[in-house]
Amino acid sequence: MSGLHPFDAAIALQPLREGEAQGHTSPAYANFIGPYGGITAAQAVRAVLRDPRLLGETIALTVNYAAALADGPFIARTRPARTNRSTQHWIVELMQGEDTVVTATVMTAARRETWSGHEAGMPDVPRPADVPRTPRQGVAWLNRYDMRFLTGFVPRKWEGQGDAESLTRLWLRDEPLRPLDFAALTAMADTFFPRIWLRRAKQTPVGTVTMTVYFHADGAQLAATGTQYLLAQARGQGFRNGYFDHAGQLWNEQGDLLATTHQVVYFKE
Amino acid sequence: MSGLHPFDAAIALQPLREGEAQGHTSPAYANFIGPYGGITAAQAVRAVLRDPRLLGETIALTVNYAAALADGPFIARTRPARTNRSTQHWIVELMQGEDTVVTATVMTAARRETWSGHEAGMPDVPRPADVPRTPRQGVAWLNRYDMRFLTGFVPRKWEGQGDAESLTRLWLRDEPLRPLDFAALTAMADTFFPRIWLRRAKQTPVGTVTMTVYFHADGAQLAATGTQYLLAQARGQGFRNGYFDHAGQLWNEQGDLLATTHQVVYFKE
Repeated sequence: MSGLHPFDAAIALQPLREGEAQGHTSPAYANFIGPYGGITAAQAVRAVLRDPRLLGETIALTVNYAAALADGPFIARTRPARTNRSTQHWIVELMQGEDTVVTATVMTAARRETWSGHEAGMPDVPRPADVPRTPRQGVAWLNRYDMRFLTGFVPRKWEGQGDAESLTRLWLRDEPLRPLDFAALTAMADTFFPRIWLRRAKQTPVGTVTMTVYFHADGAQLAATGTQYLLAQARGQGFRNGYFDHAGQLWNEQGDLLATTHQVVYFKE
Repeated sequence: MSGLHPFDAAIALQPLREGEAQGHTSPAYANFIGPYGGITAAQAVRAVLRDPRLLGETIALTVNYAAALADGPFIARTRPARTNRSTQHWIVELMQGEDTVVTATVMTAARRETWSGHEAGMPDVPRPADVPRTPRQGVAWLNRYDMRFLTGFVPRKWEGQGDAESLTRLWLRDEPLRPLDFAALTAMADTFFPRIWLRRAKQTPVGTVTMTVYFHADGAQLAATGTQYLLAQARGQGFRNGYFDHAGQLWNEQGDLLATTHQVVYFKE
């Protein structure tokens, strides 16, 4: 698969039988321990999108990180629990051996054209070409994105004196460039480093336990967005006794709202 | 069950065997067609909370409304797909006959005390005693809540001239009074009428397809909240080609953030 984009290589699945395909964690998207959660979510979405029983396009995804994925192969199990005339509800599990490591539900649908009008407007920010690329070092997956932070970058000093709020805004796109699709947008929805780090300026241990993505764009709009930068924004909401959540949005350069996303993150402090 | 609170009667489940219990839709929580989605979500949560294999308390729930529930009995299937030392990931299905009508994932955990600090603050609003109860007529479930709208009530005239934004804030509590718990909070998270009605001032057909609730409160905090009013707030984000989402928050009277919630709603216009 040497000719493939690293993202396409990472989400490749080998069909085994109806409702089962084999994937493999990707060193190109490695995180501190195990894979980047965004690539795991993209693999779960890809498992549904490649299932021959698929109806429509992705509307909503919830992915639950039940356990750390070990580097190596996994089996993606997909089941259309309910198929209606224009909607479909999927249950997905990623398995390593006998163990469930990820659960997910995916809702797909054939859309019809209706009145449309977004309410979550893109904030007024400088264009990506006017923002320097933010150097980020460390784990492999950071190198898979061109990130240009506008506000709310990782604390430069870990002094335990955080900010009163945890708003982050950045432009980002795949590195190397790759046209946008549902799997790539899914992966980008998990790009936000933990909000607790902004609030506390301590590198406390963390792990996302569940992420939801709502897709406002259809496949044609994603294709038209192509290799544009996306503006990604997230802000924490509640932080209490080991868990916090954030709410986020992703727009393309024209300001079209492509997706909204939320997640809960475990933290230890 | 005549002595029970209507909510407790509605979420009652009869154990059948490991991972299976029988419930019944409740006329007291009927909606236009079939049951109020909030009571269905509460039944899914209740199915997990009553399972003897339960570890910890509810942290996150995603419930997918795969099909309209017919009035009558259903089977709740609960499976702990993964149990770790302090967390557990559940897959839930509500079945009518051979058909899946609801899918859900529930994440539960034993919490530990950590630094806590909410970021989504309660807006400055009048106290519930200073706000008149809002008369609401129609379907049965509306009578199960005392609602006091502060802003963003259902349009008084359906003239196709909606508002530019779809913000709703209201105080609400169970009617008759009932101490708050995870199931009741789950049901209250679905209390918001469709945001598209505010935006369009047209009673377009709608149906929630998926709802996520993140629980920031633990059981002790819910018990301490008791029969207080909750301030519930929701605002639409994206409306496009048949589907829109909203993001919401629920606080108790002291301003503690108890839950955040999001959902996607189908609409036809």
